[in-house]
Amino acid sequence: MTTSLPASARPASPLGLHRVLDPPGVLPQAAWRLDPSPVIAPDEVRVRVDRLNLDAASYRQLHEAHPGDPDKIRAAVLDIIATRGKMQNPVTGSGGMLTGTVAEAGPHSPLGLNPGQRIATLVSLTLTPLQITDGLAAWDGLSEQVPCQGHAILFGRSIAAVLPDDLPTPLALAVLDVCGAPALTSRVIKKGNIAVIIGAAGKSGSLSAAAARRAGAAKIIGVVPAEAEAALLRDPAAESPLVDEIVIADARDPVGLAENVEQAGGPADVTVVCVDAAGCEGGAILSTKQGGTVIFFSMATSFSAAALGAEGLAADVTMLVGNGYVPGHAEFALDLLRTTPSVRSLFERRVQE
Amino acid sequence: MTTSLPASARPASPLGLHRVLDPPGVLPQAAWRLDPSPVIAPDEVRVRVDRLNLDAASYRQLHEAHPGDPDKIRAAVLDIIATRGKMQNPVTGSGGMLTGTVAEAGPHSPLGLNPGQRIATLVSLTLTPLQITDGLAAWDGLSEQVPCQGHAILFGRSIAAVLPDDLPTPLALAVLDVCGAPALTSRVIKKGNIAVIIGAAGKSGSLSAAAARRAGAAKIIGVVPAEAEAALLRDPAAESPLVDEIVIADARDPVGLAENVEQAGGPADVTVVCVDAAGCEGGAILSTKQGGTVIFFSMATSFSAAALGAEGLAADVTMLVGNGYVPGHAEFALDLLRTTPSVRSLFERRVQE
Repeated sequence: MTTSLPASARPASPLGLHRVLDPPGVLPQAAWRLDPSPVIAPDEVRVRVDRLNLDAASYRQLHEAHPGDPDKIRAAVLDIIATRGKMQNPVTGSGGMLTGTVAEAGPHSPLGLNPGQRIATLVSLTLTPLQITDGLAAWDGLSEQVPCQGHAILFGRSIAAVLPDDLPTPLALAVLDVCGAPALTSRVIKKGNIAVIIGAAGKSGSLSAAAARRAGAAKIIGVVPAEAEAALLRDPAAESPLVDEIVIADARDPVGLAENVEQAGGPADVTVVCVDAAGCEGGAILSTKQGGTVIFFSMATSFSAAALGAEGLAADVTMLVGNGYVPGHAEFALDLLRTTPSVRSLFERRVQE
Repeated sequence: MTTSLPASARPASPLGLHRVLDPPGVLPQAAWRLDPSPVIAPDEVRVRVDRLNLDAASYRQLHEAHPGDPDKIRAAVLDIIATRGKMQNPVTGSGGMLTGTVAEAGPHSPLGLNPGQRIATLVSLTLTPLQITDGLAAWDGLSEQVPCQGHAILFGRSIAAVLPDDLPTPLALAVLDVCGAPALTSRVIKKGNIAVIIGAAGKSGSLSAAAARRAGAAKIIGVVPAEAEAALLRDPAAESPLVDEIVIADARDPVGLAENVEQAGGPADVTVVCVDAAGCEGGAILSTKQGGTVIFFSMATSFSAAALGAEGLAADVTMLVGNGYVPGHAEFALDLLRTTPSVRSLFERRVQE
C-alpha cells in the first residue's frame, strides 16, 4: 500500500538513506520504518538470513513483557519486524546481529562478498532492513538465538564478516563481537611502548593484549579485578604469556590502581580500558604517562568524567573514544585468535561458560 | 582537634594526596575534607585569594535553597568551606575557580609562579584547599562572583594562569575558561586540512577556528545554528574572516548537517565539536572524511552515541575526548585573542552580554 518508488528505482545511498520510509531524511538507525524490499540497488547485498542474535536487553524486555509465553514473544518479534522493516525493539531501542548466506551482491557493492559465503553482520539490526518468511516457526521463543528464514539488506557502508571455515561459529562470533578493540590498539601502540590493559582477561582485553604484543610493546601489564581472572591469564597450557605482569586491583580506585601499575613497571604509554564498569576513567588516566594515550572501549565510560578527570589531574593524555569500526578489524582479530594460543584457550573457556 | 600531622611534615604528592583528610587515599576531588593549612610543602604554592567564581549550578542550588536571603547563602558557603576545606557544593558536587595573588611559591614548585603575580586557577575549586578569613563580609550573596580574603593551595600538578596586564580581567577569564580547545585543535590540525568547527561563533569555537587557521588549515567551515550567530562570524570590523565558509544548520540532524558541510567544501579532515547540545555525535562523524578526526569538546557529548554512531556508519574516524589540559594552553589562547582581531571582537561582544 506504499506509494513510494520501489528501492531499485531510487538512487542508492551508501548509508541506506533510500531505504528510510518514515520519517524521511533520518539515518536508518533513527528511522521508525525501513523498506526491506528484496530488490537490491547496485551497491547493496541481499543476505539469506538463518539466525538472529537478539540484543540481551531487547530479549529481556520481551521476555518480561510476555512472561512464560513463547507464542506471545514470537508474535511480538514478528510484529516488530513486519511493522518496522527491521528488528529494533521499540522499548529498548536495541537490536542485535544476524548470520546468513550471501544471496546476491550488487555489481557496485564495495563489501567484497560473493553469493554462497556465510557471513555475520557487524552493524546493528537496528539499521538493517529485514523480512521474515517462516513466521519464526523454528524458534522456541526461549532464548536470544532466533533460527529463522528470510532476507536482510546490507548497504554500501554496512560491515559484514565472512565466517571462517576453520573456527566453530560461536567462537568466531565471540571474536567478531569485540574485533574493533585489537585493531585500534594495534594502530595506537608503538614499538617499545609500555601497555596497560585494564580487564586483560576478558574478550576485548585479551585480544587487545595480543594486538599490543604484535605491535611491538616492550611490556604489557594486565589489570584484573580478582585472582580468578589472574588465573585465566596464567594459563600453563599457553606457551607464551599473554601479559608480562599481572596486577590485581580495583580499576575504580585511581590512586590504588596507579600505585599498583607503577610497581609493575608503569605508568603506561598506552592504557586500554576494556572493563564494562563505571568509574574507571581516573585510574586509567593516572596509570598513563604524560604525553601518553588512553583508549576507552568500555561502554560504561563517562565522557565528562574522562574530560574533567584529565583536567583535574593536569594530565596531558590523548583520550580516544573506542570506535568499533576499523577497516580490516574482523580478519585481524580472527588472525590473532588463530595465532595466539593463550587467547584461543581463554576464548574457548569463556565461550563454554 | 585533628590528630594528623601538619601538611608540612608529610611527604608531598603532586596530586595533593597528602592534603586529603577524609576519606584517606582518595583523590582530592573525591575527598570529603581537605587540609587547607597555609604551611606549604616544597612543591606547593600558596595564593592570597581575592575572588571566587562559583560554578553556575552550585550558585543556583544555594540561591534556591535559601531564597532571597543573602545572609543564609553567605553562611552556607562559609560553612561548606570551613567543613570541607574546599568550596565544593555537596549537593551539586561542583566548584568553580578563583583569582588571587601568589603569596609564596615552594622551591620545588613546577608551576613557575612568583610572589606578587596575579593568577587564575584552571583546576576546579572542588580539589583546591581553601580557607576564608573575612567571613565573606564583602559579598552581597547575590551573584556567583564572591569577593573574599583568605588563601588557597596549589599542588605540583595544579594548573594556574598568570592574568595578563594588557587585557581586562573578565576578558582574560573568558578566554582561560575554554583555553584547552584551541590548544588541542592546534595539535591535531595539519597544514592543508579542511576543518569544520561546529559552534564556530562561540568562545571555544572561535578560538578553535583561529587555532586551525594558525595551524595551516586550507579551509575552515564554521557551523552555526542561526543567522544571528552567522552575523557574529561576518563581523565587518575584522580585517580577515575567522572562517572561510559559514553553514547555518542544526548540528543534531546528521544527514542535513553533512549535506550542508559537503556543499561548503567538506567533508572535513578534522571536525571540532564546540556546541553544548546533546545529539551532535552523528552529524560530526558524518561530516568527517574516512581517516579523519573528530574532537569532542562539548560536555553534552555521549560516549556511547559517539562509539556506536561511528560503528553504525562504518566510519573510520579517530574520536578524541577534548581534554581541557594541554601544556601551554593558557598562553596560546591569550595570544590567539591578542593577534586575531575577529576573535577579540567576538569575545568583547560576548563578555558584554
